[in-house]
Amino acid sequence: MAGAITEFDLIARIRARAGTRDDVSQGIGDDAAILRLPMGSDLIVSTDTLNSGVHFPHETKPSDVGWKALAVNLSDLAAMAAKPAWCTLNLTIPCADGDWLDEFLNGFLALAAQCDVALVGGDTTRGPLSVTVTALGYVPRDAAMRRSGAQVGDDVWVSGTLGDAAAALRQWRDGSIADGSLRERLDRPTPRTGLGMFLRGIANACIDISDGLLADIDHILDASRVGAEIEIASLPTSSELENAVDAATRIRLQLGGGDDYELCFTAPPMLAHNVLRAARQSRVAVTRIGRIDRTPGLRLRDAAGIVSEAPRSGYRHFDESSERTGPA
Amino acid sequence: MAGAITEFDLIARIRARAGTRDDVSQGIGDDAAILRLPMGSDLIVSTDTLNSGVHFPHETKPSDVGWKALAVNLSDLAAMAAKPAWCTLNLTIPCADGDWLDEFLNGFLALAAQCDVALVGGDTTRGPLSVTVTALGYVPRDAAMRRSGAQVGDDVWVSGTLGDAAAALRQWRDGSIADGSLRERLDRPTPRTGLGMFLRGIANACIDISDGLLADIDHILDASRVGAEIEIASLPTSSELENAVDAATRIRLQLGGGDDYELCFTAPPMLAHNVLRAARQSRVAVTRIGRIDRTPGLRLRDAAGIVSEAPRSGYRHFDESSERTGPA
Repeated sequence: MAGAITEFDLIARIRARAGTRDDVSQGIGDDAAILRLPMGSDLIVSTDTLNSGVHFPHETKPSDVGWKALAVNLSDLAAMAAKPAWCTLNLTIPCADGDWLDEFLNGFLALAAQCDVALVGGDTTRGPLSVTVTALGYVPRDAAMRRSGAQVGDDVWVSGTLGDAAAALRQWRDGSIADGSLRERLDRPTPRTGLGMFLRGIANACIDISDGLLADIDHILDASRVGAEIEIASLPTSSELENAVDAATRIRLQLGGGDDYELCFTAPPMLAHNVLRAARQSRVAVTRIGRIDRTPGLRLRDAAGIVSEAPRSGYRHFDESSERTGPA
Repeated sequence: MAGAITEFDLIARIRARAGTRDDVSQGIGDDAAILRLPMGSDLIVSTDTLNSGVHFPHETKPSDVGWKALAVNLSDLAAMAAKPAWCTLNLTIPCADGDWLDEFLNGFLALAAQCDVALVGGDTTRGPLSVTVTALGYVPRDAAMRRSGAQVGDDVWVSGTLGDAAAALRQWRDGSIADGSLRERLDRPTPRTGLGMFLRGIANACIDISDGLLADIDHILDASRVGAEIEIASLPTSSELENAVDAATRIRLQLGGGDDYELCFTAPPMLAHNVLRAARQSRVAVTRIGRIDRTPGLRLRDAAGIVSEAPRSGYRHFDESSERTGPA
């Protein structure tokens, strides 16, 4: 086929474009990478696989696949307050297509350069399109944020806006032309790396919103053994989402839809000022959406002030994963 | 189907069995793992994907798939002289089958326990069977072995025996019942972790033999800008291989067949005694098979003393990968 090359050509092409950092003693080209962490830091490691037709629509542009595969991992590092540094890439593709690879790398390496991340290893194999990225970063010793640190009385915050990616996915499923900026949120999520780092010492608990707000807050509540009440009227909403769907659908997408890759975190009310400063420093909006309490479970307060138990959604990801973007 | 469970059940099952280490501050169960390296060490990272029907026969036992997926990565760490410490696992499986997973983990975690490696993260997704493992380890600062350090005059050594895995693959392809111990070498390769660590400060260059002896030595020669001559009569041979095939086939398998996961390394002749001590300490046989010289390329000396250029094999791995064990 057009652009067909060998595996060694593929690797050479990746290696030539991979970029580096001063702390990479050995990148692509040996049996393993040799990396050097700053003194007194903890290593933070995240990994995620994206499969075509499960985690992104089959016809997603190769450059967007590349961007997103790295972004979802950097988002995990952001949730730990880590500074990203390195990544590896395992690329399974149906055929050794150099043109496809170049497009893929355009997206992948654009985000890598933006976040100062060096691609230091990986492999290419033949098979149905699947991308696994492992992202590595570091934090000062014991400074990582965890899901388990939420305290009774903490405010619950989220970054950015919610529901945009889920709305784009819905438009795509319905066969309607997806709104450009909503689709951008689905295909090119922005990892909140800067915000995560600025929240060190401020936030008590943090998670990134990949499965949906309710499901991901639940992870914080379970790990921290606390409860929370969320105000539906507070959910941050983009004007594009506001225009795209009715209010009931919007709220459903904002509570249950995944793929936002915003941060959800908790912090003591007396540090609200510090949270807002971290947001300014990282140029990301943050919104207070609720409060941690000692009543187990997650409750939603609607605009009329009526409080109800949140539906337990998002918990059967594997069973439903093939319905997210069509059959695998 | 039998044993069908949700993704969260799968992850809970993996987490319950994953084991840990004192230097794992956070394992499975947050957005990322938090790990602590010893002071003054370099981080070593290797990653490899194994696809069913490409890197192992479809009918391979789940426990052997698990073992091998970790083994090939620990073999890469061994080639760098790294002490293995942690790993992540990205598992793509056709359906959420708890019985299959348990078997897979039996193999994976048996090797992990044997090498004191903690499974600290990963994910499970639905799709054609594919396993990506990322292995992390460390070496004292600047003590990693590389492909690029071979010096003119160095002896060339290999560990264990060569060609066994390739012979088992050939038997399997031919439809004959594979010899048990040969098949064991294909399905359950032993990473030479101990040997790699004992070779620190002794070997000038090292690689693990995954693509075949000729191809992998070539990587050392290219990276070190040297040549080598190999004595065919010196290739270490198991009695099982000797019995399984004729001499010409045997030599072809030993030179060109992959999947041995032995170490190939170079060391100054004056350190031969130290090499042999490292072998005794790690209870792995080593054999001197040739010498590094300044003539570019790789030459083979046969039993009659005739020297010829080695065929350039193993270089089109991607194109041929689906022929290794049948269509993907």
